[in-house]
Amino acid sequence: MSLVIIRKTAPTAPWQQAFAAQAADLTVHAWPETGPLEEVDYVLCWAPGAHEIARYPNLKAVFSLGAGVDHLLSDDTIPLHLPIVRMVDTSITEGMVQYVVMAVVNHHRRMEGMRANQVDKVWQKLDLVSPRIGIMGMGGLGQASAKVLSAMGYRIRGWNRSGRPVAGIEVFGGESGLLPFLSGTDILISLLPHTQETISILNRDTFSALPKGAYVINAGRGEQLVEEDLLEQLRSGHLSGAMLDVFRKEPLAADHPFWTEPNITVTPHIASWVDPVAGTGHVLRSIEAFERGERPEGLVDRAVGY
Amino acid sequence: MSLVIIRKTAPTAPWQQAFAAQAADLTVHAWPETGPLEEVDYVLCWAPGAHEIARYPNLKAVFSLGAGVDHLLSDDTIPLHLPIVRMVDTSITEGMVQYVVMAVVNHHRRMEGMRANQVDKVWQKLDLVSPRIGIMGMGGLGQASAKVLSAMGYRIRGWNRSGRPVAGIEVFGGESGLLPFLSGTDILISLLPHTQETISILNRDTFSALPKGAYVINAGRGEQLVEEDLLEQLRSGHLSGAMLDVFRKEPLAADHPFWTEPNITVTPHIASWVDPVAGTGHVLRSIEAFERGERPEGLVDRAVGY
Repeated sequence: MSLVIIRKTAPTAPWQQAFAAQAADLTVHAWPETGPLEEVDYVLCWAPGAHEIARYPNLKAVFSLGAGVDHLLSDDTIPLHLPIVRMVDTSITEGMVQYVVMAVVNHHRRMEGMRANQVDKVWQKLDLVSPRIGIMGMGGLGQASAKVLSAMGYRIRGWNRSGRPVAGIEVFGGESGLLPFLSGTDILISLLPHTQETISILNRDTFSALPKGAYVINAGRGEQLVEEDLLEQLRSGHLSGAMLDVFRKEPLAADHPFWTEPNITVTPHIASWVDPVAGTGHVLRSIEAFERGERPEGLVDRAVGY
Repeated sequence: MSLVIIRKTAPTAPWQQAFAAQAADLTVHAWPETGPLEEVDYVLCWAPGAHEIARYPNLKAVFSLGAGVDHLLSDDTIPLHLPIVRMVDTSITEGMVQYVVMAVVNHHRRMEGMRANQVDKVWQKLDLVSPRIGIMGMGGLGQASAKVLSAMGYRIRGWNRSGRPVAGIEVFGGESGLLPFLSGTDILISLLPHTQETISILNRDTFSALPKGAYVINAGRGEQLVEEDLLEQLRSGHLSGAMLDVFRKEPLAADHPFWTEPNITVTPHIASWVDPVAGTGHVLRSIEAFERGERPEGLVDRAVGY
């Protein structure tokens, strides 16, 4: 059995080492090494490039190196019959939950205001307002975030495409649920996947439906945010601030207005990451599932895009 | 039945309103109003002052307005037979868990470094080191913090006086357990109560037993920290930083070195607070327990001091 790792912008060594440690009998190539193309069963990749995947005539499945699969679904040179599997790894979830919690609690508990007071040597208890938190995207990341935030005393509501219920959380569904969801959300968190339907979903209409003073956290995808609409809503005072980890163009250009906008916190796409050791475990379990004729965890439904 | 609220440094009105709403038949006085002293059954107070509690000849119990009871236990004019009850309220726990999580995640995920990079418009993924978290004090606040931090992927160990086990957490006990506990702790959190045994427990010896680069969070009591020892350990580079919510003298004096120490974050004793509505519920449930001859939640064991 043979697997090719295609990771063009970062080292493959940690992944090769993890596969060697966990599956010594699996032949692993680091692209551009591939071995005989007809012998490759699986590819693990990020943005492999057009026509690359089609080179392997006997491929059984394509694995994404990240939780996102838009880099694969948007590539129409990948044969449609090939199963695509997104990365499922507790380190993705843990990193994302940490990021979301950090953004929420720093805003709610006014950490920046306290830092400013420290500079001025001012001992002052700042007023707190208990926020209602609305999470867009109630998959694994959204549910894990909701669970931890609930345990911290926060009131949570969720929104997803289908309205599929989640135990213990009020979930609003689809287009008809969006306005009612937004009207009761003081901190809006996007953990949505990148699909045709989520492009530019964080726009003027969305922001206007939030209560005055609402705060926005985007840890989904940069393409979901209409950047000029966010700036407009911040500058008008309708929104109180935003913490953003993802952007339409990364790295964020040095002259981008987000860097210096007073109430925007920029983080450099660090909300979550894949741990090679844990990620390799997911790939190996998925390969075993395919070989048994079963569906692995993280198998992508092309019709919905995640 | 009659209750007197003694709250000298803050308004009593929110508490009076909460009692009026939840127990219209209870006679509530706001000190210095007391009604006939012999008719007072219960006192709810913070730092009532020497000889005050002894004035009420038929008192059945004293309630603290906060989670701490050192202001009552240190007052030897309070008759020893009187039961003392500390405040138990989910808003205390929630506020404390939020604070502890904020301190941990900002340190681990390098929020200050990212803010500095934003000022310089630098897009850089900072290295992260997964910390081992050690919580001193494994009562309600410690356990609630441990539960949330565990759900966020952090490795937790606890230390308490008795070594009493806590489900799912490695607990070190007593003096003999302290060094082994500290040697595997990268972020040390004190949630200890104020007792004779915890005074100055955060000292040079304690800090020296932590691994180099450790971080300290004090949300217990200011008297637990030897302030000059913390400064020494920070300046030598053995400790990497600290976040402090409580101090030996509050408000922190304008010329105190903590305000300007580069790696100390000062917050103005805001980690947690008591919600009058929820706190009143606790007092009323406790009164019912006393009247039935039962032990209320939060009944203090004078021998251990909490």
